[in-house]
Amino acid sequence: MTDRAMALAAVTATAGELADCWEAVRDQSPLTQCLTNIVAAPFVANVLLAAGASVAMVDNTHEAEEFAGVAAGVAVNLGTPYDDTVTAMRAAVRGAAKAGTPWVLDPVGAGGLPWRTQVARDLVGLAPPAVVRGNASEILGLTGAGGGRGVDSTDAVEDAVTAARDLATELGTTVAVSGPTDHLTDGQSLLRLAHGHPWMTRVTGMGCALGALMAACTPVAPSPLVGAATATAALTLAAETAAESTAGPGTFAAALLDELSLLAPTDLAARVELR
Amino acid sequence: MTDRAMALAAVTATAGELADCWEAVRDQSPLTQCLTNIVAAPFVANVLLAAGASVAMVDNTHEAEEFAGVAAGVAVNLGTPYDDTVTAMRAAVRGAAKAGTPWVLDPVGAGGLPWRTQVARDLVGLAPPAVVRGNASEILGLTGAGGGRGVDSTDAVEDAVTAARDLATELGTTVAVSGPTDHLTDGQSLLRLAHGHPWMTRVTGMGCALGALMAACTPVAPSPLVGAATATAALTLAAETAAESTAGPGTFAAALLDELSLLAPTDLAARVELR
Amino acid sequence: MTDRAMALAAVTATAGELADCWEAVRDQSPLTQCLTNIVAAPFVANVLLAAGASVAMVDNTHEAEEFAGVAAGVAVNLGTPYDDTVTAMRAAVRGAAKAGTPWVLDPVGAGGLPWRTQVARDLVGLAPPAVVRGNASEILGLTGAGGGRGVDSTDAVEDAVTAARDLATELGTTVAVSGPTDHLTDGQSLLRLAHGHPWMTRVTGMGCALGALMAACTPVAPSPLVGAATATAALTLAAETAAESTAGPGTFAAALLDELSLLAPTDLAARVELR
Repeated sequence: MTDRAMALAAVTATAGELADCWEAVRDQSPLTQCLTNIVAAPFVANVLLAAGASVAMVDNTHEAEEFAGVAAGVAVNLGTPYDDTVTAMRAAVRGAAKAGTPWVLDPVGAGGLPWRTQVARDLVGLAPPAVVRGNASEILGLTGAGGGRGVDSTDAVEDAVTAARDLATELGTTVAVSGPTDHLTDGQSLLRLAHGHPWMTRVTGMGCALGALMAACTPVAPSPLVGAATATAALTLAAETAAESTAGPGTFAAALLDELSLLAPTDLAARVELR
Repeated sequence: MTDRAMALAAVTATAGELADCWEAVRDQSPLTQCLTNIVAAPFVANVLLAAGASVAMVDNTHEAEEFAGVAAGVAVNLGTPYDDTVTAMRAAVRGAAKAGTPWVLDPVGAGGLPWRTQVARDLVGLAPPAVVRGNASEILGLTGAGGGRGVDSTDAVEDAVTAARDLATELGTTVAVSGPTDHLTDGQSLLRLAHGHPWMTRVTGMGCALGALMAACTPVAPSPLVGAATATAALTLAAETAAESTAGPGTFAAALLDELSLLAPTDLAARVELR
Repeated sequence: MTDRAMALAAVTATAGELADCWEAVRDQSPLTQCLTNIVAAPFVANVLLAAGASVAMVDNTHEAEEFAGVAAGVAVNLGTPYDDTVTAMRAAVRGAAKAGTPWVLDPVGAGGLPWRTQVARDLVGLAPPAVVRGNASEILGLTGAGGGRGVDSTDAVEDAVTAARDLATELGTTVAVSGPTDHLTDGQSLLRLAHGHPWMTRVTGMGCALGALMAACTPVAPSPLVGAATATAALTLAAETAAESTAGPGTFAAALLDELSLLAPTDLAARVELR
C-alpha cells in the first residue's frame, strides 16, 4: 500500500452500523433497479432476494429513467453492454439524479476494453454514483491508470487504493475495490474487510451481485460507505459459512444464497472484522 | 373475496384430470417456445426440462412467427422487454394465432410500468391468450384497475379475482392470479390451490417459470384451465417437498427442479387439494 | 454407422494427451470469449470458471472484434441470436481470423430454423472454425442434410457422422456430434466417447457449455480434436460423478460444477475411455 493510502483513517464504520443496515434491508425491502448483464442477471436477482430486498431489472429505454425515480437504489453494471441497454443506463442515471436515488456503478472490464471504459466515464459524468465497485484493474482502468484482461483483475488490490481514494475525492463517492481483502474508501477514510472464500471467484456474477447488493443497502444506510461495507460483509460472511459445508463452486453458490438469507444482523455484527 | 367472485362455481377440474395432463407432458414432451426475460430464462428452461417438456427460446424477429406455428405452446413474458424482443413477441402471437397454437401471457410489471402495460394490452389485442398469469397487481394493472411496485404485488390475490373473472370473460381466456393461494378462473368457474412455500418468492423467475409451464401443459390439457392448474399444482407441490430438505432459497431452487422431475402423476393426484 | 464413417481411423488421441490438455487449462487459465445465448450464459460461464478457465462474454458490436484478438479462444453460440449480437459474432470471427485465435461454432437449432442456419453458414464462410459442435440434427442441418425440432435433435448421432466427416474435411475443422455417444472427427479420424448421464439433457445450456469448454481447451491443446475431446471427457466424466450423489437435474447441475473443479488430470486419464 502506498504512503498516501496509509494516510487514510483506518476504520470509519462500526459493526453495529453494518448490522443495523442489514436489518433495515430486511425490514424495508428496498426496491432495487438493476441494469445488469445477461450472465449475472439470475444470480444478482437471487442474491438480492435472499437478502430480503426487492429487485426489478428495468433496463429498457422506455422505462429506465422513470423507474429510477421510483426505485430506492439503482445498480448499473457494464458486463454485457449493448447500444440499447447503454441508452437505458444513461436514462436510469438521469432519472436517479433527478430523484436523488443513489446509484452504484460496476464498471466491468473497464480499462481493458476502450468502448465500455468510455461508457463508464460518460455515466459518471452524468451524475456521480454513490458507490463505484470493481476489481483493482477496473478501478485503475476507470481512472485511466491501468486496465485488466477482459473482466479479470491483473492488478493487486493494494495498487488500486490510491486511485480509489483519488476517484472518491474527485467524485464525492465511495469506491470499493474488491479482492481477497476488500478496500472501501470515501476519500476521507479507508475500510478493509478480509472475509470471503476463493470460490467466490469461481462463480459467475459474484462481483456483479456485490455491486447490486450495495445498491440495495445504500438507501437504508447512514452513508454509502456503510451501505457498501454492509453488502461486502454480508456476502463474504455468507460465503465463508457456505464454503464450510460444500465441495466446490456449484453447491457453494446455492448454499451462499441460503446463508445470506439466514445471516442474522447480530451474527453479522459478531463475525465481521473491520480493519 | 367479493360477492361476485364467490358466485363462480368452486371447482371445475379434478385431481385426475391434472394427473393425466402431467403425464401427457412427460409422454409427449410438448415443444414450448419461450419469449422470456434475461433474468428468468435459465430457471424457466430448467423447470420445463425437469417437467419433461421440450423448450426453445426463439425470441428474435426473424424466427418467432414461423416457430410459433411449429411449437405446441408459446409463452410470452414481459420481464425485460426491449424494442426488438417486443417485435418478436408480436410476431410470435401472430404466428400462434394463425396456427391455433395456445399462448400464455405473463404481464410482468403490468400496471406499475406504463410502456409494458401498453405492450401487454397490444399483445392481447392481436389474439387472445389461452392463459394470462400474473400476481394480483399485474392482473389489476393489465385490466386498468390497479398496479404494483415494480414486479412485486402490492395487492391481495382476493382483490384481483373479480378483475380476473371479468378479464377471462372478456377475452375468453383463463386467468391465473398467483399468490399464497392461487386463483384460476375461466370466467365461469374458479379453482383455488394453496400449495407452495414462501421461498418461492425468494427465487427469481419462479412466477415466470409457472407461466411457461402453463404454456407446456395447456397443449396437452382438455382445457387451458386444466393446463394452468396442472402447472400450478406441479410447481407448488414440488416446492413443498423441496422445502422440507433444504435450508434456504438457493438449495431450495435446485431441489425444486429435482422434485419436479420426480413428481409422479399419481403423487400429484394424491396430494393436490382443489378448492 | 455407415461404411464411410467406419473407414475413419478409430482413435487418434490418447488419454494422456487429454489429461495434459486439462492440466493446461488450469495452469494457463485461457481467456475464453463467449458470444452465447441468454438462457445458457450463466451456466456456460460457471462451467468455464469451474474448469479453471477465464471467461469474458464480450458480445457487443463495439468490442467483439478487437477482443477476439486478445482472447485465447472464442465460442460462438446461436441459441438466441439477435441482429446486433449476430453482427458482433461476425466481428468476433473476423477478429479471431486476423489474430489466429481458434473459434468454436455451436449452431444451436441449425436446420430447423432457416434464418440462423444461414447465419451459421455465413460465419463459417468468414473463417473456418477450429471446432463445430452440435447435436446430430444441427450438424445435419448445417450441412443441408437434415434438421431438428427447435433445439432438440431428432436424428441419431450415427446418422450425422458421415456429414460430420465431410464437413470436417471441407472446412479443415473438427466436428463434434454430441449424443449418448459423442463422435468427434477431424475428417481423418474418428474419436468416440460414451460417458455422461441422461440428466445432461435435462439441464439447459449443457451443450452450450460443452462448446464453450472446447473453446477454452483448444488453445492449449496440440490439436482441435484433442481440445474438443478433452472438453467432452471432462464434462461427461464430471457428470457421471455428479449423478451418483444427486436426485435430479437441479442438484445434479450444481454438483457437476463441483466435480468439474475437482476433476484431476490423472483422474481424467484413468477414467476416460476412447473408442
